[in-house]
Amino acid sequence: MCQPIRVSAETTTPPVCVLGLGLIGGSLLRAAVADGRSAWGYNRSADPVRDARADGFDADTDLAAVLRRAAEADAVVVVAVPVPALDAVLAQVAVHAPDCTLTDVVSVKGAVRDAVARHGLGARFVGGHPMAGTAESGWSAGDAELFRDAVWVVGSEDGVDPRSWSRVADLALGCGAVVVPADPDEHDSAVARISHLPHLLAEALATTAAAGGDLALALAAGSFRDGTRVAGTAPDLVRAMCEANAEALTVALDEALALLTAARTALVAETSTETLVLSGHAARLRYENLARAEITGVRVGEPGWERRMREAGRRGEVLRTLP
Amino acid sequence: MCQPIRVSAETTTPPVCVLGLGLIGGSLLRAAVADGRSAWGYNRSADPVRDARADGFDADTDLAAVLRRAAEADAVVVVAVPVPALDAVLAQVAVHAPDCTLTDVVSVKGAVRDAVARHGLGARFVGGHPMAGTAESGWSAGDAELFRDAVWVVGSEDGVDPRSWSRVADLALGCGAVVVPADPDEHDSAVARISHLPHLLAEALATTAAAGGDLALALAAGSFRDGTRVAGTAPDLVRAMCEANAEALTVALDEALALLTAARTALVAETSTETLVLSGHAARLRYENLARAEITGVRVGEPGWERRMREAGRRGEVLRTLP
Repeated sequence: MCQPIRVSAETTTPPVCVLGLGLIGGSLLRAAVADGRSAWGYNRSADPVRDARADGFDADTDLAAVLRRAAEADAVVVVAVPVPALDAVLAQVAVHAPDCTLTDVVSVKGAVRDAVARHGLGARFVGGHPMAGTAESGWSAGDAELFRDAVWVVGSEDGVDPRSWSRVADLALGCGAVVVPADPDEHDSAVARISHLPHLLAEALATTAAAGGDLALALAAGSFRDGTRVAGTAPDLVRAMCEANAEALTVALDEALALLTAARTALVAETSTETLVLSGHAARLRYENLARAEITGVRVGEPGWERRMREAGRRGEVLRTLP
Repeated sequence: MCQPIRVSAETTTPPVCVLGLGLIGGSLLRAAVADGRSAWGYNRSADPVRDARADGFDADTDLAAVLRRAAEADAVVVVAVPVPALDAVLAQVAVHAPDCTLTDVVSVKGAVRDAVARHGLGARFVGGHPMAGTAESGWSAGDAELFRDAVWVVGSEDGVDPRSWSRVADLALGCGAVVVPADPDEHDSAVARISHLPHLLAEALATTAAAGGDLALALAAGSFRDGTRVAGTAPDLVRAMCEANAEALTVALDEALALLTAARTALVAETSTETLVLSGHAARLRYENLARAEITGVRVGEPGWERRMREAGRRGEVLRTLP
């Protein structure tokens, strides 16, 4: 018989080492410090490090030194660099801090999981994704309150290390977020639908409107303004996000194209938009009325806890405190 | 030689007769009264009339009586009923108030122009469309400030009656809006792009997200919330608006479908979203930076004034005071 593995609550909150001080990493460094943690950061380019120091934070451009410090302090290492920089950073983690709890805040989870495995860092890795952001970017756009009441996905595949999982979930909760446990691939499919597809539709809407000239843009009101807001995001950020999740995004885009093509047919043949409008309205109401029930009764480390966490997340349930 | 027709400024502001007391008509009645005008309204169903009266407004369910009063007072008659009710209302206008300045607030202008012509009411008709609204509907959702700083399209085709045009533009300005002169068909093409297409894309986005289940909806943040906001609008209103502009909407939808289909191809073949993202971002910046220059130097009634007004509107220019 298996004995349930109990994770003893840590008596001290572990330090946090943030790699990458852009909008998300910079906000995380601020939020961790605001939560009373010891926290420090790394950034490859010097300007954000200088700005972070000027704002009173502990930051450095020396990745090896920052990681050795993490290893000595048994810190939680958070990878907050863009996808193209993942491999270079993970290679250094493998050299200098291979035994630390490792997480990330990257917007795709399957690709990060695979990269982490390539570098032999899977044992203490727990993927993460705070669903927060603005159209702004960089250290200066950061905000300790960015994650307040946001959803923070924490990867919960079978075999994930319970102690590391609790540490990562605790960090998310300490930043003010609620935790949704999810399988990495299910996460990627979900964010393709609710985060990446909205960007492509916004870009298509803005382009189609502008093709109507200044008259069209002059008449644009709330529906256009809201529908294209995220088209104001820096193109490099949109591309990095969408292209890193190309496979799942293609599935979501195909579904949207099928809906719109069917709507086009009905509009021409029957002058009707009924099917699409009714389904969209019902979907929006379902979103507005989603109950974010609290996950209870799942003890981290007990047999099957990862599956039970995933199932709860699949129902839209959240953790508000560490179980 | 033609003599320029000068429109003598009216010494008194004409009364306003609003037919239909839903969100837009009800807001217009309130705004006209707030602007110091004599104004009264009609609604077919009794509840909005009762509510309007309870709120201190002059309202009735007797269309003939309301219109006879408009004829006696030389009022501006504003048609604010849904498209399916247009013909019934216009038939009564033709009987009881055929010589009044006639305008409307319907979201399509070609169909209204044609209906007005069918009822022989073209001589003093000037189409209108205030680009304002909320996801709410009905008298109770109305607001005297709904049109504040909104754009109000005023139909400016060749041969439009200058006195009626000035009266309608003055009403729009009195409600706090700015006036964009436009050809009815160009208006319909423009609103298909900036108002009706956003609704179809929002419905498709909401539907695609909901197909990802509660996990997807639980992860939805700002980009989804903003991108689907108008999917919360009552389906009947969305359908009425989109289906009344089916022809222009089909053109806009086809353009959006072509952009998204090309993006799908590039995403699969090259893992790139560059073309769509760059064009969408540029379009959004163009919208954000649109200078709403003031229309100056066009005197209502002088030869070619309708064309010059339309050209200014096509450049995104607005009237802030009556010329």
